[in-house]
Amino acid sequence: MEEAGLPYRVRKLSLGAAQRSPEHLARQPFGQVPAIEDEGLTLFESGAIALYIAERSDALLPTDRIGRARAIAWLFAALNSVEIVVQELAAIDLFHAQEAWAKERRPQVEERLCDRLALLESALGDKPHLEGRFTVGDLMMADVLRILRHTSLLARYPKLDDYKRRCEARPAFVRAMKAQMAGFDKASIA
Amino acid sequence: MEEAGLPYRVRKLSLGAAQRSPEHLARQPFGQVPAIEDEGLTLFESGAIALYIAERSDALLPTDRIGRARAIAWLFAALNSVEIVVQELAAIDLFHAQEAWAKERRPQVEERLCDRLALLESALGDKPHLEGRFTVGDLMMADVLRILRHTSLLARYPKLDDYKRRCEARPAFVRAMKAQMAGFDKASIA
Repeated sequence: MEEAGLPYRVRKLSLGAAQRSPEHLARQPFGQVPAIEDEGLTLFESGAIALYIAERSDALLPTDRIGRARAIAWLFAALNSVEIVVQELAAIDLFHAQEAWAKERRPQVEERLCDRLALLESALGDKPHLEGRFTVGDLMMADVLRILRHTSLLARYPKLDDYKRRCEARPAFVRAMKAQMAGFDKASIA
Repeated sequence: MEEAGLPYRVRKLSLGAAQRSPEHLARQPFGQVPAIEDEGLTLFESGAIALYIAERSDALLPTDRIGRARAIAWLFAALNSVEIVVQELAAIDLFHAQEAWAKERRPQVEERLCDRLALLESALGDKPHLEGRFTVGDLMMADVLRILRHTSLLARYPKLDDYKRRCEARPAFVRAMKAQMAGFDKASIA
């Protein structure tokens, strides 16, 4: 919403029972966050929400057929080709680190992730963004790469690391992050 | 393409080195399949390809704002909320079944998957499709559920199982599957 320059209001949700309440499951069938409400529409899934917002602003999505399709491809790639492996590593490190299976499995996941990151860095090359300009695909890809900040993996891919920092330095990102952090102090919890 | 009623031509790709060739990486940055080419556009990621095709046919995507957004939410949900767990189970069963970590991890993954499937079945309820009519979201969700055919898990969720069968019985699905299987005999391998 910050990138698109659209107004928004945040409602938070407590962890636990509130996530499985009938009201929340009607918003988000899997009991997760985020979900949005906009003029009679209730929408879930980060990717679908990002695309819905992007379609309402030239800032996030080119309007020509090819540019639009390529940006959407990177949005899906961020979630399905990169986050899927990033999350497998993060789950091991953050939730299962002490379990025997996790110690045995971790090197396999790290190897698979490093292969993906190397291919992603190749695709990025020396460009500032994945396509000719910043799009919703970069927004999501940078956010997925941020999940790795508990590791030093990204340092092995300096072009990717710079790319992530470039996205994080965007004024809209800085505003969004500041608003999100502030929200943890004084918040309207649903 | 079969659901949308659009003409297409299939090119296959050999497993192995061909997937990492410079030509294929230019089509698909992660060396995977599928990728499509259409009037100067090269597009990758199953979700992005399905959406691109869906946008070219009323058969797969409603044109009203709310119906369209909801269908796209289920497309992302199929890939990011369901397939992500389905694939973790499938990887254990099909590639790592004999490894010690896999035996320890499998019950955790199955439990997480069953939780997702139960919530998905609740969201489906007694409706024939996830929203009021068949969309690209159903196409992808049914295809993700098919990955579980090496297990008997889906039998625990009879409404979901029926839903998957209903999608598989569609004439376009039958045509697509028949064409895909036939292609394994006499094929133009790239």
